[in-house]
Amino acid sequence: MGSQSPRRRELMAGLDIPFTCVTIDADESYPAYLQAGDIPLYISRAKAHAYTSNLHENDLLITSDTIVWLNGKMLGKPNTKEEAKQMLNLLSGHTHQVYTAVCFTWLNSSSSIENNELTDINYQTKQPNYLYESFVDCTDVTFRTLTTKEIEYYVEKYMPLDKAGAYGVQEWIGYIGVQKMHGSYFNVMGFPIGRVYEWLNAFYKA
Amino acid sequence: MGSQSPRRRELMAGLDIPFTCVTIDADESYPAYLQAGDIPLYISRAKAHAYTSNLHENDLLITSDTIVWLNGKMLGKPNTKEEAKQMLNLLSGHTHQVYTAVCFTWLNSSSSIENNELTDINYQTKQPNYLYESFVDCTDVTFRTLTTKEIEYYVEKYMPLDKAGAYGVQEWIGYIGVQKMHGSYFNVMGFPIGRVYEWLNAFYKA
Repeated sequence: MGSQSPRRRELMAGLDIPFTCVTIDADESYPAYLQAGDIPLYISRAKAHAYTSNLHENDLLITSDTIVWLNGKMLGKPNTKEEAKQMLNLLSGHTHQVYTAVCFTWLNSSSSIENNELTDINYQTKQPNYLYESFVDCTDVTFRTLTTKEIEYYVEKYMPLDKAGAYGVQEWIGYIGVQKMHGSYFNVMGFPIGRVYEWLNAFYKA
Repeated sequence: MGSQSPRRRELMAGLDIPFTCVTIDADESYPAYLQAGDIPLYISRAKAHAYTSNLHENDLLITSDTIVWLNGKMLGKPNTKEEAKQMLNLLSGHTHQVYTAVCFTWLNSSSSIENNELTDINYQTKQPNYLYESFVDCTDVTFRTLTTKEIEYYVEKYMPLDKAGAYGVQEWIGYIGVQKMHGSYFNVMGFPIGRVYEWLNAFYKA
């Protein structure tokens, strides 16, 4: 698993399937024309691409990326506490989308063209040595109106600079501020674990 | 807080408000005519009632109860592993409701009749020495079809005999089996922490 996120690791560990974690240094920039779920799809693919040369036979690499999408704009990780507070002010009283993409990468042992078929729900590259499949999951999250005091308290105490949209749903702000949610909670935590399980099940059965 | 549930304690701790836990031995039976959310409302009230004689001035007691409601029937805590498996078989492939009721109890220092007004969203008893307020929260949870192997694995490994409906949403079965959810995830964990926070906020401001 190519992730340093403790939330992703915890969720993955909950599947009771052995796995190891690797560190990937990937360029997380993306083309400006990409929108919504296509952004984490692109970035999770870029993370995988940065690691493919280290893959061994029978390895399956899982990479992932999460963004917060509010009224047609992306909120990434805040650089400063000030930016974190601004983001939470934007999210306060509104509904946003959380998109998490998951990318699975493995060596193409046959390297035949048949394995590179494109399906309508999955994406695969034309790279002959590796195979990729990705999906993206979306959850609607509604914050009630947060007070300045609540935003200050959360940012100062929890320092959410490593989190897309400046919040962790499994932290204080998620407890007190999330009014409703439609879709997977785990997706908002950063890893749609149910769909990962289903994908792995289908992959290892095949 | 009158609860032995580690999930409830963890969620309550996340509010960053000091609290202590007490053990309450209450009769959890209820009248047969009660339906759905009225069942945990009744039981959370019974838990509170079993403790009122121990309350001191300025204490605020929080009690809570959670049930799983499937097609007009309640699923409580399973007594045996066999019963747990049967419950999960019933839940598999269907949508059910999780109801959690929270009851707040405190000494009525004034004992005047004004404090006993009934509001349309809250319930208060006519008991002159104590005041109660309760609410109930509901979440729709949809399980995908679970295999016998998945149900066996979960029950044998996780022993969900202390859990209403024989599952913990924050455990393996929640990761792999929950297809969608509408409402609060924390409510399904057994404690609608956002509404608890709002209630406490309003109570201590008043």
